[in-house]
Amino acid sequence: MQYYVDLNSDIGEGFGSYTMGMDDEIIKHVTSINLACGWHAGDPIIMEKTVKMAKEYGVNVGAHPGYPDLIGFGRRKMAVSPADAKAYVLYQTGALMAFTKANGIKLQHMKMHGALYNTACADEAMANAIIDGMEALDKDIILMVLSGSQIAKAAKARGLRVSEEVFADRGYNEDGSLVNRALPGAFVKDLKDAVPRVIRMVKEGKVTTADGKDIDIKADSICVHGDNPKAIEFVKGIRAGLEEAGIKIEAIENFVK
Amino acid sequence: MQYYVDLNSDIGEGFGSYTMGMDDEIIKHVTSINLACGWHAGDPIIMEKTVKMAKEYGVNVGAHPGYPDLIGFGRRKMAVSPADAKAYVLYQTGALMAFTKANGIKLQHMKMHGALYNTACADEAMANAIIDGMEALDKDIILMVLSGSQIAKAAKARGLRVSEEVFADRGYNEDGSLVNRALPGAFVKDLKDAVPRVIRMVKEGKVTTADGKDIDIKADSICVHGDNPKAIEFVKGIRAGLEEAGIKIEAIENFVK
Amino acid sequence: MQYYVDLNSDIGEGFGSYTMGMDDEIIKHVTSINLACGWHAGDPIIMEKTVKMAKEYGVNVGAHPGYPDLIGFGRRKMAVSPADAKAYVLYQTGALMAFTKANGIKLQHMKMHGALYNTACADEAMANAIIDGMEALDKDIILMVLSGSQIAKAAKARGLRVSEEVFADRGYNEDGSLVNRALPGAFVKDLKDAVPRVIRMVKEGKVTTADGKDIDIKADSICVHGDNPKAIEFVKGIRAGLEEAGIKIEAIENFVK
Amino acid sequence: MQYYVDLNSDIGEGFGSYTMGMDDEIIKHVTSINLACGWHAGDPIIMEKTVKMAKEYGVNVGAHPGYPDLIGFGRRKMAVSPADAKAYVLYQTGALMAFTKANGIKLQHMKMHGALYNTACADEAMANAIIDGMEALDKDIILMVLSGSQIAKAAKARGLRVSEEVFADRGYNEDGSLVNRALPGAFVKDLKDAVPRVIRMVKEGKVTTADGKDIDIKADSICVHGDNPKAIEFVKGIRAGLEEAGIKIEAIENFVK
Repeated sequence: MQYYVDLNSDIGEGFGSYTMGMDDEIIKHVTSINLACGWHAGDPIIMEKTVKMAKEYGVNVGAHPGYPDLIGFGRRKMAVSPADAKAYVLYQTGALMAFTKANGIKLQHMKMHGALYNTACADEAMANAIIDGMEALDKDIILMVLSGSQIAKAAKARGLRVSEEVFADRGYNEDGSLVNRALPGAFVKDLKDAVPRVIRMVKEGKVTTADGKDIDIKADSICVHGDNPKAIEFVKGIRAGLEEAGIKIEAIENFVK
Repeated sequence: MQYYVDLNSDIGEGFGSYTMGMDDEIIKHVTSINLACGWHAGDPIIMEKTVKMAKEYGVNVGAHPGYPDLIGFGRRKMAVSPADAKAYVLYQTGALMAFTKANGIKLQHMKMHGALYNTACADEAMANAIIDGMEALDKDIILMVLSGSQIAKAAKARGLRVSEEVFADRGYNEDGSLVNRALPGAFVKDLKDAVPRVIRMVKEGKVTTADGKDIDIKADSICVHGDNPKAIEFVKGIRAGLEEAGIKIEAIENFVK
Repeated sequence: MQYYVDLNSDIGEGFGSYTMGMDDEIIKHVTSINLACGWHAGDPIIMEKTVKMAKEYGVNVGAHPGYPDLIGFGRRKMAVSPADAKAYVLYQTGALMAFTKANGIKLQHMKMHGALYNTACADEAMANAIIDGMEALDKDIILMVLSGSQIAKAAKARGLRVSEEVFADRGYNEDGSLVNRALPGAFVKDLKDAVPRVIRMVKEGKVTTADGKDIDIKADSICVHGDNPKAIEFVKGIRAGLEEAGIKIEAIENFVK
Repeated sequence: MQYYVDLNSDIGEGFGSYTMGMDDEIIKHVTSINLACGWHAGDPIIMEKTVKMAKEYGVNVGAHPGYPDLIGFGRRKMAVSPADAKAYVLYQTGALMAFTKANGIKLQHMKMHGALYNTACADEAMANAIIDGMEALDKDIILMVLSGSQIAKAAKARGLRVSEEVFADRGYNEDGSLVNRALPGAFVKDLKDAVPRVIRMVKEGKVTTADGKDIDIKADSICVHGDNPKAIEFVKGIRAGLEEAGIKIEAIENFVK
């Protein structure tokens, strides 16, 4: 049996004169990018440039919409109503689609950012509103979300394409959520630990939680980071490990139903 | 010979808790709306609601992108580069396309707002960059611009669909530009003057300037306003006058090449 | 014994080309205004104009800072840290102080807006951070907050001047909080009910809750609204009723310690 | 005769999660900082932190207000009216004054940023409006502007304190303006050229233009940059050169009238 997995990374997170991350580097090592859409980060010039870069490298593009909170980088929970969240996601996704369309490529997926991602995974009304929006916009756009989350299940039940994502460098709780960054077991920093872990997630659909229990997990895509040279090395290590294990690294478009 | 003309109006210009204009009224009397896209005015909730309203009334929808200047309502000239302007127009147009697509209607046209409109009519590099963007995005989206402007000519030469617009309530200079609002002859406020004037623009392709000279003008669409009850009455009068003269009021989609 | 009470209203809540409320009317009937500072509403031009108007009418000016959420009018809870909230309040208060200082008047008070107000009343760490900020800025600036709230007590304990405010048109719960707008008993709409109610709050320090129980309340200031002609009439009625009952309507500066 | 000169640098130009420049380094080598106030760059948290850092290093603080153009970093000319510009400058300066006051230090000066700086130097109505605002706010706040500019003269004539600034690394035209960055002679990159040049500006009040002509110049303060390690080295070289020439490096507060 041939196993497949996608590697995704958040990029295009600068704004105006501000830069963030090593976009030029990380894009060489992933198959899908989540491109900020101007609300928590990103701007039209960066979006256009990054779409062209993705096209050049043959990397697939997804929208990465967030809360209207540039000063907080979209990381702060806001009491946004489901109707508002749906409209915010459509607005940002559409804005990026102008650049993908103008450059002759397809928008592969939509992955929410930061606090919006977390809320959509935890709040059913929010999840349903966003699914409504994406279904109306284009059922073929893949929803990239936390593996095992309610929104993943709800979207699948509605006939949307879903990519369940896992984290190579984060610890898991028993309910499939990530260990809070402030708690022990939040991070998996050593490649020696991370590589067999992601291989097992892909091949066996299992991961060991911070408390040592095995849980089911589906790994369509692995989220990786390109913040600094060390992060890039980590991604290269993950990628090499997966390939050595016979897993094909492909964009979700090619294998997610 | 059957004459056609479109009536267009800027709507959806509220923001968050702020409202502006009589959108619910004016939409009943026009065939095309220019919908603000969140930069100089408008927000995702208003965009969604207005798209639904346009669909209900059978009115065609266009994007109305502006400068990133909410506090100045997009009316202040900004030294935005052509490359920036192109990306800003694509971003905002795409954002609106998410709502038209999600609601099963087509984006008919794109008309720039305020200072961006004026600059694009006057500055060749800016005009060309914006035409590049719209051509790449979708050559079928009609560009709505000032009748006789350079950008109108350039867009036609490139094979884009163009709707040349005229103003029922504004005076003209000999070069086809509008008389500055601070000068005499800037406004045509009386319906008795305005109605024969727009009929002549449509049928003869002529208008008399503030200085009393006849110039050529092409009237695919007439821009009207819905700011207050008096403006609504003016539009109703214009519409009735055009119909009485045997001119069909239709959306540009139906007759502009 | 002479009783005093202040009447305060939120004004200056427009933005750029957008207007909100009947500022020109309501200012004639209150003694203190809470002036939006540009984050959830308001802008420098409106701030300057409103400060001049307050000076002309002899009405005292307070800052009305809110969350950085113009699109949500500062009404949505945001997970802002205490350190951020403190800095946001200082920034906005300082911005307004430039206009009061430049116009030769004093900044009388600071009253938070919307979701920031609610959070500061409920969250001790947030309250303490904001008190720290105001204490460092100027201990003489009066903190206007919900009567009986934790932040009111904490600020008094720290030696800050505090104006406890009550609402003429809102129902109260037993703990002194306001009845949720969606529940029965949330509003007191009839002047015949509202007038004796506020007189009793001022003279006896008591109010009857929505459930019919008497609780203690301190009424240094009564918050009133100027959203529409009916609201203005309500304020005039409240004011007339208080004066008939021998209560002096004065700005908090004149009697709050 | 004892000569004095101030060294000033723009700092605090990050925003939210974005950083810019080497603030921690450059602050050690200057006597005055121009602190961004949240419109073109900067935010309340950065302002607070930078004010505390300036206090720690004994460096004087000035406001650095700009246009409302974060995406353009305040570098794009905007058709802002004089009344708007005045209110924008007051707002931002006041916002920073909250942090200087809360930290027990004085606001030393105000220096406009980018396109606002350039416009205020070239446009008399704009200059006068801003001078009106600063005079009303506090005549003791020093206006830091381009040496020899109209606004410098106008402010002095009105009794404001003015610090005329020069650039160590930029070429001059005969009218005292800076050589356009795109033209030859725009930059003085070599310390061997720059050091005698600034010494001459301070001691003789003369500088040689890009065309080789001597013009008068007043050097109360020298603007330097902390963008990268090379820039920091340049500043250290300038400082050492000035001190070797017997010129005292002091904040403008201490010697500007």
